[in-house]
Amino acid sequence: MKLRRVGEDALIASLVRELPASRKLIGDDCAVVEFRGAKNLLVLKTDCVVEKIHFRSSTNPELVGWKAMMRSLSDFAAVSAVPQFALITLVLPAAKSTSWVQKLYRGLKRAASRFDVAIVGGETSATRGPAVISVSVSGFVEKNRWISRRGGKNGDDLFVTGRLGGSLRAKHLRFVPRINESRWLTRNFRVHAMMDLSDGLGADLPRLVKASKLGFKIDKGSLPLAPGAKIDNAISDGEDYELLFAIPPRERRRLEKAWRRKFPKLPLTRIGSLLHPSSFNLQPLRRGYLHFQ
Amino acid sequence: MKLRRVGEDALIASLVRELPASRKLIGDDCAVVEFRGAKNLLVLKTDCVVEKIHFRSSTNPELVGWKAMMRSLSDFAAVSAVPQFALITLVLPAAKSTSWVQKLYRGLKRAASRFDVAIVGGETSATRGPAVISVSVSGFVEKNRWISRRGGKNGDDLFVTGRLGGSLRAKHLRFVPRINESRWLTRNFRVHAMMDLSDGLGADLPRLVKASKLGFKIDKGSLPLAPGAKIDNAISDGEDYELLFAIPPRERRRLEKAWRRKFPKLPLTRIGSLLHPSSFNLQPLRRGYLHFQ
Repeated sequence: MKLRRVGEDALIASLVRELPASRKLIGDDCAVVEFRGAKNLLVLKTDCVVEKIHFRSSTNPELVGWKAMMRSLSDFAAVSAVPQFALITLVLPAAKSTSWVQKLYRGLKRAASRFDVAIVGGETSATRGPAVISVSVSGFVEKNRWISRRGGKNGDDLFVTGRLGGSLRAKHLRFVPRINESRWLTRNFRVHAMMDLSDGLGADLPRLVKASKLGFKIDKGSLPLAPGAKIDNAISDGEDYELLFAIPPRERRRLEKAWRRKFPKLPLTRIGSLLHPSSFNLQPLRRGYLHFQ
Repeated sequence: MKLRRVGEDALIASLVRELPASRKLIGDDCAVVEFRGAKNLLVLKTDCVVEKIHFRSSTNPELVGWKAMMRSLSDFAAVSAVPQFALITLVLPAAKSTSWVQKLYRGLKRAASRFDVAIVGGETSATRGPAVISVSVSGFVEKNRWISRRGGKNGDDLFVTGRLGGSLRAKHLRFVPRINESRWLTRNFRVHAMMDLSDGLGADLPRLVKASKLGFKIDKGSLPLAPGAKIDNAISDGEDYELLFAIPPRERRRLEKAWRRKFPKLPLTRIGSLLHPSSFNLQPLRRGYLHFQ
C-alpha cells in the first residue's frame, strides 16, 4: 500500500508498535530518558520542516529558520524542560542561493539564542528535491518537574495559554514557544498533564484526554480566539503552539491571580475540565470520536 | 551565488564561522558537551542519507536503514563514546510503499540493537521530493576517554583499522562501526588523536593532521587494501568507516600484540607517523596540500 493511503499518525503508530519494549522513559512530545549518573533527566526532540509541505519556496528564509528551531523548542515547553543544545541538518538543492541559506541560518540562530540554546553541530547534504531542515534539540528536566500528557485527574480544570486559530496567516512563522510559562507553571503549581497545541485543539485535546484515560467537557464559547478567528478555527487550524494543561480546581484562583501578575500580556483561559467518561454518558474516548459540546 | 558553486565544506565553514563563540566543548566528529550535574560528557551527533545522493531508489531499504543509523554511530567510534538513544526523522514521498518503509525501519532497528541503542522517538513528514532519513544519536563518554582529532604529537605512529578502498561496491551499506575497538583502545592505551574515515584517507588524514598542527609521512606501500582495491582507491574512495588514530611509538609493540589477541580477524596497520612539518621541509599543511610520499 502506498503511503498516500496511510495517514502519518497511522504510520508512526505502526512503527512504534514494532519498537522493542523499552526500559527507558519515553514522553509523548519529547523523549525523556535517564542519563548515567545525572540527577536530571535528558530530554531529546527532533523535528523537521520541508519545502512545499511546511513552507513555500517564496517564504522569507529567516522565518523558515525561526520556525524550524521553534517547533522543537515548543515540545520542550510541553514537558516543562530546558533546551540546551541543537544540531541542525540542512538538505539543500544546488539551486538555492547562499544568501537564502545564510538567512535561513540567521533565523535558526536568532531562535536558538532567544532561549540560550547553543548550536553545537550539524550536517549538510545536497538533494535533487525540495529543501529539508531538521533540528534536533537536547536539554534537561528535573525528575519532579517533568510533565507528560498522562497525569490528568478526574475533575481537573483545562487551561490554554494565548489565543487560538488563524495561525497560518502569520503567527506560525513567528511564534515564541511557551517555555518560560511552562517552567514557571511547574515551579509554582501542581500541573497534572500538559502538551503544546500543534495540530489544533480538536486533534490535540483528545490525545491528552486519552493519555490520561479520561473524558472531557469543553465550553466552546469560552475558547480564546485570535483576532479574526472563529470557533472552528480555534478547534481545527492548528499550529497555535500554545500550552494546554490540566490542574486541580483548588489551584484555579491562585493560578489565575499569579498568572495575571507574571504574564500580564498573555491570556490564560479555563476552557473546560477533565471528567470520568461515564459522568457524561460517553463510551471510552477513541480516535475520531471528538465531542465538543 | 548558487550552492552548486560552493563546496559543502566551504558552506559548513562559513556557517560555523558565524556561530557565537561557545562556552561548550565541541568535537569535530560529534558535539561533546557538559550535561548538568553529570560526571560523563554528553555526546550528540546527527547524520542523514538522501535518496539519489547517498542511495539509489532501487537499493534494498533495509540496507539503507542500516547505513543511516551506522553513519552516526561511526562518529561515536571516532570520539570513543557510547551511543545510547536515537531519534529518527523520515521524510517520505507518498509514492513509497509501506513495505519499503517497514524494511527501512527494520534496518534502522537492527543497526541500533547491534550497539544496544534505543530508538526513543522521531518524526515523519511527507515530501514532494526524494526520501530523506535523518538519525540523531546521543550518548556519553567519560571525560578522561574522550578523543578528538587534536591531540596528535610529533612522532606519533599513525594506525588504521581494517582495509581501505572499494567500499562503494558493497561495504558502505553493511559496515559495522568500530565502536568496540575504539572503546577498547581508550581503555587500554594512550590514544592521542582519532577519527573515523568517511571521506577517504586522502581527505580525512589531513584533517587530523591539521587539527593536531603537525605534518605527516605515509608509506603508501603499507596501506591495507580491501580485496580488489588499489592504492588510489584506499586514498580516495571514502566510506571506509575505519578508525585512524595516533599513538605514541612506545606503545606500538604492546598495541600490536594485544590487538591480534583481541581482534584476530581485523587487521591493524601502522601506515606512517605524525611529524613536525619542518622535519621534512614542507610548508605548514593547508587544505588541498596533500602529500603522499
